[in-house]
Formats: sequence, structure tokens, C-alpha cells
Amino acid sequence: MHRSSVLTLALLLASQSTTRRDLLQNAGLDIECHPARIDEAAIKASLLAQNALPRDVADALADMKARRVANKFPDRMVLGADQILVYKGKIFDKPNSVEEAKTQLKTLRGQSHLLFSAVVVYEKGIPIWRHIGRAELTMRDFSPSFLDTYLAKTGHDLFTTVGGYKLESLGSQLFLSVKGDYFSILGLPLLEVLEFLRGKGICQT
Amino acid sequence: MHRSSVLTLALLLASQSTTRRDLLQNAGLDIECHPARIDEAAIKASLLAQNALPRDVADALADMKARRVANKFPDRMVLGADQILVYKGKIFDKPNSVEEAKTQLKTLRGQSHLLFSAVVVYEKGIPIWRHIGRAELTMRDFSPSFLDTYLAKTGHDLFTTVGGYKLESLGSQLFLSVKGDYFSILGLPLLEVLEFLRGKGICQT
Repeated sequence: MHRSSVLTLALLLASQSTTRRDLLQNAGLDIECHPARIDEAAIKASLLAQNALPRDVADALADMKARRVANKFPDRMVLGADQILVYKGKIFDKPNSVEEAKTQLKTLRGQSHLLFSAVVVYEKGIPIWRHIGRAELTMRDFSPSFLDTYLAKTGHDLFTTVGGYKLESLGSQLFLSVKGDYFSILGLPLLEVLEFLRGKGICQT
Repeated sequence: MHRSSVLTLALLLASQSTTRRDLLQNAGLDIECHPARIDEAAIKASLLAQNALPRDVADALADMKARRVANKFPDRMVLGADQILVYKGKIFDKPNSVEEAKTQLKTLRGQSHLLFSAVVVYEKGIPIWRHIGRAELTMRDFSPSFLDTYLAKTGHDLFTTVGGYKLESLGSQLFLSVKGDYFSILGLPLLEVLEFLRGKGICQT
């Protein structure tokens, strides 16, 4: 489960998500975080203007993050990742304010939505592997007072996640059911990533 | 997401699992841990001798744990839980040694197995709610050298979990796919428990 001796350099993670870093590190991988600075909102808007499908937007953003870091470190393997929330064909961005989180959660309340977690790996400056994980989550019909308590208690996590929830903390109180890949809910389709890394000799087979 | 004001006493968790405690606490619940001392192996053997189905064994063990603690604290709500691993109709116990973990993992390698997570809630000394969550996991066909590395690195966790793995740490390296309820893999069908607690006014609706 650790890097083979021929590969002594850590995998670069082009993401600022501590959850993604923890997932990979807990699986025994040697990880260095190099968040890529891209203008996600502008890129997303541009892709949607071209009628890109939501899952393709996630893939394109993961690709751009990985490429940006790969350009800086051409000798390293770089993993880029992105997660999007899709409800009725529309992408929900990370909320920028408590009011925005409230509006999103009121829209999603009592309904099912999709999460797509895309990952793209670059090696020697080119994309060599990509995958998109998927999960479907159904929110319960929570009360206005629950929502106010939730918003007050969740705090900063509201703005760091699509949909304003973390299923591994208070977010569990929002849901009736969760189907599909749990790791994709956390933000990285981990089992598929590990299988790819085994193929590359980076994880022990 | 927190206890209503009419209910000022913490929920008692009749389990020594820190994962279960963390799941409930992260969901915002006030939890007190009171592990029940029952002879799991003897009870399991007795139930199996009576041709109990594996999932009924999990339910019976969760029930016994909750009842034992409920008898001590008759005025409190008590949650008991148990998880079993079933492969080809046979229950796998927590390994008692590295050799036993190795034998189990060699048996499960390249195959699918089931995890059942049972929970039973007692109130005023009687069982008022029960649920069994289910997940199906498929292990990859890992190499003997991987297995040796895994056993060496996993250490004490080998003996605290059925099957000798934690999916949230190095255990992820064992698997090709995971289907069903992720929370049941962790040892507690959390979303169903929360829904029940909302019905009891213990979680905000």
C-alpha cells in the first residue's frame, strides 16, 4: 500500500481539500498538496455557455487543476479533482454566504440531487487517466427551525463544500438516503484512484 | 440537530466502538458510552447452533448489549449495535491474532462478502426500535506481499474490526468495490438511526 522503491516522489494533489488529502494519506499514500489557482466560476460559466454537461464540467475543472500544477512540476505525477452538485440539470456552486447556503438547502430539501467527483491524473505534462464517480442523495423535508440551527452550527463548512454540507458531520442530519459511491460524496472516487495507482506501480498490488 | 429541551439526558451507547460514538457525536448527538459486557462468542455459537440466520445474530447481539445497559439505567434511552461479516453464509468473527486475520483475508480475497450492522434501541427496559443495514464489499485479488505489508501496517486495528479492516484507513487498499450503506460499513446505519431519533423528539425535525 506504499510507494514502491523505484518511485520515491510523492504524488502531487492539485486540490486544497483536506478531505481529499486525508483520504489518500489514510490509504497509505505519500501526498504533497499544491492547490491550483484557477478561476473556477469563470471556467464553469464558460463551459455551461457552451452547453457542456454537468459531469463534463467536473472533469474539465479537475483536468485544469491537474494541468496547472503539472506545468509547474513536469517530472511529477499530479492528481486533480473536482466535485459538482447537480439538481435538475443545474450546477450548484459552493455557497458564498449563509443566505446563499440557506437558499440552496431550501431548494434541495425533500428532493434528490447528484454529486459527481471527477479526478484526472497528469504524468509528464499529459493527462493519462480520468474517472468520474457518482452518488445520489435524498434530503429529508426538514423544518425551517432545523435549517436555522443547522446553518448556525455548521459555520465555515457551509462555504467549503458544494451544497453546504459534509455528510461526515452535521450534514448527516439533512439526509434520508444516500446511494452510490460514498467516496465520491467525500470528494474523491478513492477505490478507482487506488486501482489506477496500482497499475502504475505506485501502490503495492 | 440537538436534543430538544425536554430531553436533557444523553443517549446511552451500549458499545465500545469509538467509530460509532464519533458517528453519533459528529451528527450532533449527546452520547454517553456504556459498553455492555456480554460473551459474544458464546451467544453467537448458541444462536448458530439453533440455525439462526446471520443477520438475526447481529440483531440478537445488538439487542443483548442494549438490554444489558438498559437494565442498569432503566430511565434512559439505550442504543445497542452489532456488526457481522458474512461470507458464503458463514459469520467471520473479529480476528484474535495476525495469523487469523491473514487466514480470513486470504479467504475473502477476490470475493464479495456482506456486512450487516444491526441497531436496537431500548426505552424503559423494552426494545422499541430495531434496524439492520447492509453493504456488499468486493475484495481485489491482492498479492501475498501486499497482504504481509497490510498486516504489518494495520496493527491493532486488525483485532477491533470484523474482517480485520477499516475502510476509512488502509482497508481501502483491499477493495475493488463497495455497494450499499456506507454507514453500515462503519458499524452503524446512521441515517435510519437519526430518522428514528427525530420521531422521538431527540433530534430536531
